[in-house]
Amino acid sequence: MYSNRSKSSVLPSGGGAALIDPSDALILLLDHQSGLLQTVKDISISDLRRNVEMIAKLAALLEIPVITTASEPAGPNGPLMPEIHDYAPHAVYVPRKGEVNAWDNDDFVAVVRSTERKTLIMAGVWTSVCVMFPALDARAVGYDVYAVLDASGDPSEMASRVSLARFVQGGVKPTSTNALLSELHRTWARPEAADLAKLYGLVAPNYAAVAESYARAQQAAREAA
Amino acid sequence: MYSNRSKSSVLPSGGGAALIDPSDALILLLDHQSGLLQTVKDISISDLRRNVEMIAKLAALLEIPVITTASEPAGPNGPLMPEIHDYAPHAVYVPRKGEVNAWDNDDFVAVVRSTERKTLIMAGVWTSVCVMFPALDARAVGYDVYAVLDASGDPSEMASRVSLARFVQGGVKPTSTNALLSELHRTWARPEAADLAKLYGLVAPNYAAVAESYARAQQAAREAA
Amino acid sequence: MYSNRSKSSVLPSGGGAALIDPSDALILLLDHQSGLLQTVKDISISDLRRNVEMIAKLAALLEIPVITTASEPAGPNGPLMPEIHDYAPHAVYVPRKGEVNAWDNDDFVAVVRSTERKTLIMAGVWTSVCVMFPALDARAVGYDVYAVLDASGDPSEMASRVSLARFVQGGVKPTSTNALLSELHRTWARPEAADLAKLYGLVAPNYAAVAESYARAQQAAREAA
Amino acid sequence: MYSNRSKSSVLPSGGGAALIDPSDALILLLDHQSGLLQTVKDISISDLRRNVEMIAKLAALLEIPVITTASEPAGPNGPLMPEIHDYAPHAVYVPRKGEVNAWDNDDFVAVVRSTERKTLIMAGVWTSVCVMFPALDARAVGYDVYAVLDASGDPSEMASRVSLARFVQGGVKPTSTNALLSELHRTWARPEAADLAKLYGLVAPNYAAVAESYARAQQAAREAA
Amino acid sequence: MYSNRSKSSVLPSGGGAALIDPSDALILLLDHQSGLLQTVKDISISDLRRNVEMIAKLAALLEIPVITTASEPAGPNGPLMPEIHDYAPHAVYVPRKGEVNAWDNDDFVAVVRSTERKTLIMAGVWTSVCVMFPALDARAVGYDVYAVLDASGDPSEMASRVSLARFVQGGVKPTSTNALLSELHRTWARPEAADLAKLYGLVAPNYAAVAESYARAQQAAREAA
Amino acid sequence: MYSNRSKSSVLPSGGGAALIDPSDALILLLDHQSGLLQTVKDISISDLRRNVEMIAKLAALLEIPVITTASEPAGPNGPLMPEIHDYAPHAVYVPRKGEVNAWDNDDFVAVVRSTERKTLIMAGVWTSVCVMFPALDARAVGYDVYAVLDASGDPSEMASRVSLARFVQGGVKPTSTNALLSELHRTWARPEAADLAKLYGLVAPNYAAVAESYARAQQAAREAA
Amino acid sequence: MYSNRSKSSVLPSGGGAALIDPSDALILLLDHQSGLLQTVKDISISDLRRNVEMIAKLAALLEIPVITTASEPAGPNGPLMPEIHDYAPHAVYVPRKGEVNAWDNDDFVAVVRSTERKTLIMAGVWTSVCVMFPALDARAVGYDVYAVLDASGDPSEMASRVSLARFVQGGVKPTSTNALLSELHRTWARPEAADLAKLYGLVAPNYAAVAESYARAQQAAREAA
Amino acid sequence: MYSNRSKSSVLPSGGGAALIDPSDALILLLDHQSGLLQTVKDISISDLRRNVEMIAKLAALLEIPVITTASEPAGPNGPLMPEIHDYAPHAVYVPRKGEVNAWDNDDFVAVVRSTERKTLIMAGVWTSVCVMFPALDARAVGYDVYAVLDASGDPSEMASRVSLARFVQGGVKPTSTNALLSELHRTWARPEAADLAKLYGLVAPNYAAVAESYARAQQAAREAA
Repeated sequence: MYSNRSKSSVLPSGGGAALIDPSDALILLLDHQSGLLQTVKDISISDLRRNVEMIAKLAALLEIPVITTASEPAGPNGPLMPEIHDYAPHAVYVPRKGEVNAWDNDDFVAVVRSTERKTLIMAGVWTSVCVMFPALDARAVGYDVYAVLDASGDPSEMASRVSLARFVQGGVKPTSTNALLSELHRTWARPEAADLAKLYGLVAPNYAAVAESYARAQQAAREAA
Repeated sequence: MYSNRSKSSVLPSGGGAALIDPSDALILLLDHQSGLLQTVKDISISDLRRNVEMIAKLAALLEIPVITTASEPAGPNGPLMPEIHDYAPHAVYVPRKGEVNAWDNDDFVAVVRSTERKTLIMAGVWTSVCVMFPALDARAVGYDVYAVLDASGDPSEMASRVSLARFVQGGVKPTSTNALLSELHRTWARPEAADLAKLYGLVAPNYAAVAESYARAQQAAREAA
Repeated sequence: MYSNRSKSSVLPSGGGAALIDPSDALILLLDHQSGLLQTVKDISISDLRRNVEMIAKLAALLEIPVITTASEPAGPNGPLMPEIHDYAPHAVYVPRKGEVNAWDNDDFVAVVRSTERKTLIMAGVWTSVCVMFPALDARAVGYDVYAVLDASGDPSEMASRVSLARFVQGGVKPTSTNALLSELHRTWARPEAADLAKLYGLVAPNYAAVAESYARAQQAAREAA
Repeated sequence: MYSNRSKSSVLPSGGGAALIDPSDALILLLDHQSGLLQTVKDISISDLRRNVEMIAKLAALLEIPVITTASEPAGPNGPLMPEIHDYAPHAVYVPRKGEVNAWDNDDFVAVVRSTERKTLIMAGVWTSVCVMFPALDARAVGYDVYAVLDASGDPSEMASRVSLARFVQGGVKPTSTNALLSELHRTWARPEAADLAKLYGLVAPNYAAVAESYARAQQAAREAA
Repeated sequence: MYSNRSKSSVLPSGGGAALIDPSDALILLLDHQSGLLQTVKDISISDLRRNVEMIAKLAALLEIPVITTASEPAGPNGPLMPEIHDYAPHAVYVPRKGEVNAWDNDDFVAVVRSTERKTLIMAGVWTSVCVMFPALDARAVGYDVYAVLDASGDPSEMASRVSLARFVQGGVKPTSTNALLSELHRTWARPEAADLAKLYGLVAPNYAAVAESYARAQQAAREAA
Repeated sequence: MYSNRSKSSVLPSGGGAALIDPSDALILLLDHQSGLLQTVKDISISDLRRNVEMIAKLAALLEIPVITTASEPAGPNGPLMPEIHDYAPHAVYVPRKGEVNAWDNDDFVAVVRSTERKTLIMAGVWTSVCVMFPALDARAVGYDVYAVLDASGDPSEMASRVSLARFVQGGVKPTSTNALLSELHRTWARPEAADLAKLYGLVAPNYAAVAESYARAQQAAREAA
Repeated sequence: MYSNRSKSSVLPSGGGAALIDPSDALILLLDHQSGLLQTVKDISISDLRRNVEMIAKLAALLEIPVITTASEPAGPNGPLMPEIHDYAPHAVYVPRKGEVNAWDNDDFVAVVRSTERKTLIMAGVWTSVCVMFPALDARAVGYDVYAVLDASGDPSEMASRVSLARFVQGGVKPTSTNALLSELHRTWARPEAADLAKLYGLVAPNYAAVAESYARAQQAAREAA
Repeated sequence: MYSNRSKSSVLPSGGGAALIDPSDALILLLDHQSGLLQTVKDISISDLRRNVEMIAKLAALLEIPVITTASEPAGPNGPLMPEIHDYAPHAVYVPRKGEVNAWDNDDFVAVVRSTERKTLIMAGVWTSVCVMFPALDARAVGYDVYAVLDASGDPSEMASRVSLARFVQGGVKPTSTNALLSELHRTWARPEAADLAKLYGLVAPNYAAVAESYARAQQAAREAA
């Protein structure tokens, strides 16, 4: 059972015991397609796309594997939002054969298994379908599953609240994009710190203005010195 | 015990292990009556009726049995919304004898049992009463119960949030109409695909416009060719 | 000047002096296109389409002329929502030559003028553009202009509030679909009363349930008699 | 012209110059019917009914004339809410003959004129129709018209905002039930003060609790003395 | 252990197995005081008081015992809202000696125990304190506890959501006033049906208008006969 | 006529021509009483009190005269919030004799007139009453009147929107506390700049954190130098 | 007087008579500074910045002059958001000497006058201050002034509503970023059409997805051909 | 195991069995820094700071130990809000070495352990990161952990809802500042009662006005005696 896997990310203080081990993590981005995005009502399309963009950039920066898939992209559901593969060029795209649930597709599950990673971080449109179904099915066979709610989207606020409850009930761990960033980031004492800092401006746009103010205040102090 | 029933809907990939088995599913539509609809405050009456209409059409299309019932329909509670039996002519109506809780009515429970199906999909008005009471009682005797929150209605936002929590606490699985559609739909590689596609425009009205745009764009491309 | 035109619709009581004269009214439905509909955020797409559907049916029922137009319908903006011409087959479609503002198009203005009607009832997507621009231009040359806010749509709540203010500032009269229905309806003592009654269920969906309850209550009383 | 009428309610300080003169005021309560109330979405039905109840009680207490009317009360629109005539037994009911706009009805206008009062205070359901139409028509012939927005109701928030703008554009003065109470109340130095105090608990339910706390605090002080 | 108590309220169909047994129920109304009511922000004070009024009337009608208590009623917290003892004259008031948590008070717990009832239905202000603390303490010693969220109040929406989650986490069952009414009501085939029907208008004010419309429609049918 | 008064505050650039002249300004704070504050629903009580506190401090800093008054402060309406006279010790309190409208009180109007200032800046609870009535009456005799909406309060969101519309209709200029601060502040090149800067943290609490960040960033730059 | 200036942008149809003449337009971007952005509460910072970015790009594309200014940028207010000068390199920055109101600054007004343009399009933070004050002052000397509400920001929703009302009262025309784009765009039959199309995705992010779907649908049609 | 520790705070009635034992409690205030505060969107910054201020004062009053820490306070994240150490001078500040998760820092965990307290009360910014990570890690090693949601902040409403769910799922107890105050307060029969009473005005600002009204009402009663 994977739950006995020792986590390389647990520190001597005990920190990280309950958190994601980045070396065991696999990101699944499911059906972020232009047509489906129009139906999302629990988050603005710009916030949603910016959050997904952040995940793509984060995965590329920290070298976490990413699998994408799409549901009937030649039909009305439309193409995947291009930011994903633009910012995460290492992502692997797995086509499906009409299955709504990615976990119904043999190829998709095979690629997941081939990574030998047991912590699945999922986001997609709709949350209640494209994330929920593979999340529950993966949980049923022992994966540790995280659902990133605000990098996903549902067609109503009510559906969104229901999805959150159903995830918890099914043993899937709900999270948000900003928490995912911090949970994989872990410490500022690492070489990628400057690049990571920029990602915070994507999940919390006020943070970008904080940084601009900070730089200007320091410049003013130096000029006054 | 039903939980050991093998699901015919589980695929070799493991897909569907945690999802509804359509061949075991029974839909219960409880007290969607014109008078009670006026008291619903957690969803607009037009969204609610359209969601229920979708369930009726879906059940007819996929030949899933439906049982309806009403609470004192000759009194102020009013008649069932006609869309249900219009779009699901195979639905069976069971009158009650004054019981608020459908599960208190012997006839109703007998009809449920006669189907030999163990996965109950319930929706009704009020969520906190007409769905909650039979859901909890059915769960207590081992049924797998789904409550479709947005095909149901409660008299306040607060009551709605409370209902969601009580369902989860009681082991009832909350879901939304769009998720139900997708969970029973399962794959586009089936003969009903075109009919199913139309149902998505009911649970996500933006999707209908997506389809209209798609068709027009293709026509433009063909005309330009 | 049109403002001196005597209104045939003013009653001996003085009723109607400040209201629309149906015989002088012309309805302009501007750019209700599937692609643009996706950008609307101040009203749900289902409410918006149902309101426009109501206007089309009302115009057909009361024989009020309708002009439609679309902005680049072969491009991403997409086709007009089909309900308009389906329910108002007498509507006249005027193609444009790339102009954003319908009033910039000679053909459009010529068709408007040819009706010799001076009360323009406008709706469209976006409110702040497709309705605002021709509304202000038409007002500038003396037309009495009504903007139907909830049969139109804007890309944010803030844009919507701004549009309402700019209409009032510019002398355009804001109205809502339900008010338009009642203002043209005017009295239940007319042959179209039964058909008009059905239209109220479109602008106020609770009203349809009110009517269902009413019919059932009367049936119950008769059965009890 | 009525605008030259001297107001008996203007005080030596100049106070009241811009306010309602109670001796010139006439209250019109239009179509507060049980069926129409179901369609109201810009105020809760309980707040709306309590506000109308307050107006009825206030009119009775201060002996301000009230005229009521209803639209097809034997049909789905339903009966007037009984609180009005219960609490304002002096109110005069004027039946209509199918007219949507009360000002279209000769009898209604005749009764209004017979009071010789020129300040009309109107409320009704829908705001955008049952209040708007007679308000605009009455304003057109010189009446000073007040529309009590929260003793009225519209079928959407957007319709409600539109109604407010159209009233202002048309020279109708918008007001709220609490302001109406205070504007007619005018001073605590009058014999009806105790009765008026109770009415504040209807327009601002927190005020009733304020009064309960006040009485208890005084009792505690007296007991401690 | 109380959980083995046979419920007299379970029907042959199995109905009621998961529901409250009225003969085992005890209602605790905690600190609904005029000063504390001013701090409630998750429900309007009028809705809150009307819901509590309903519980008082329901308890009196069905002869369910009620215990009330107040926190420092001679101080700023103020007196209990008078509706409780007015409408439930059988309610027993237990004074406290400064304890915030009613379960800290020996007298209060003794009165609870003396009823020999094991199903506690609690409401109070604040939800997160006056209901939460005794609810958790009672649950800890084996009581079956229901918290009526909308007959209680918290000082913010966030506090309210937190309270709901903490109840569920602690094994307390959340419910709403309308569900409580229906759960104790159980069937229309009982002598109190007419009185119970009136209570629905308190928890769902639209229902009162539904009933008014129903009566008028039947009258119209009879008059037409 | 006061409108011909030359404004000392108009600069050579033309700046200030349409703005308040501080030397002509008089602040009226009306009925900010603890009991009435409980009934305010269009702004949180903490934001409201902080805004009023800012006005008091601003008036003291810039030596702008302030008049306060209260309605029946020995009764349930309660005492004035103490911050006003604490922070604006120069404010003059004028008791009333039961009048709801301060402009009905001879003493109040006399004190206003004695200042010989013609620009009245008003705030109070309720906006629709305690501010509206004197604002309209003062406007009627030629004063230039500003109503500070967010240093005032109304018993509902709807009443608040109605008040804003009625002010505009009546020629009263609506403003907000932050705008008032800036309009009287006018320039950072003045001796009170540091004190004024602190006031911005009251009307926009994020600004205080901006200033804290700024100081720390400068300190860090200096330490790094 | 500028109002007699003939507009080069009015078409033979009369279109544009009431709209902005691009050749007479001048854009003023006022105090979009990182510190002030933190205080904005009526629009998200990401929407606000994207709208300002759009205006900068539009101005550059259509060669409309832009003037920027900032309030104490070396202090806590912080630097201008860099997007403005990045995307509109032709913009002219005018420093101020501590004045809150840009119209108080001689240099600023001189630069405005030097353009000889009379239609001022303003946006800034705060709306109620940095836009309001120069807007009213400029209007007072005859400029035609537009305030772009959603490219500006206020510290509360209430302040935002108040600002809109005060603009209208003062003769300033309120508009939104999407309307500004369309009003300057005017026709798709121009060489900049493709570049303009991209700007729509900034003011209405759903539009970008509409375009992505359109392109993919056409590709699918071509591939199927 | 700490769960067997006898609680000194359990009363003979059983009261407190499920509540916090103040003598076992330790408060952790994590990263309440001026820069991070700008990114909080689920609570206003003024409410958040006032809640944290209350906790600091409460800890000082009841002598409950407090540990604070900050994430890169010399960088853009900014300094801790000064209220914490101002009002809780006994609080211990533990610097970190770049770790995002305080539980990753050996010093921090060592200080926690040194207190020998097993009930951790945590608040911080962001809730989903700075509170969530140490809360889950501490829970994993057996601490009883409370998360004070409204003394913490997340960058969106959705993130906030997700955090609440993840806390519950992970066995962390969610609470609110007002509940924390009452849970530690426990009884009015203690010497600190007067000081505690003042703290209620911080978590529920209406309560301060309740107290002002109470005092004035008593004064009035005494003066009348």
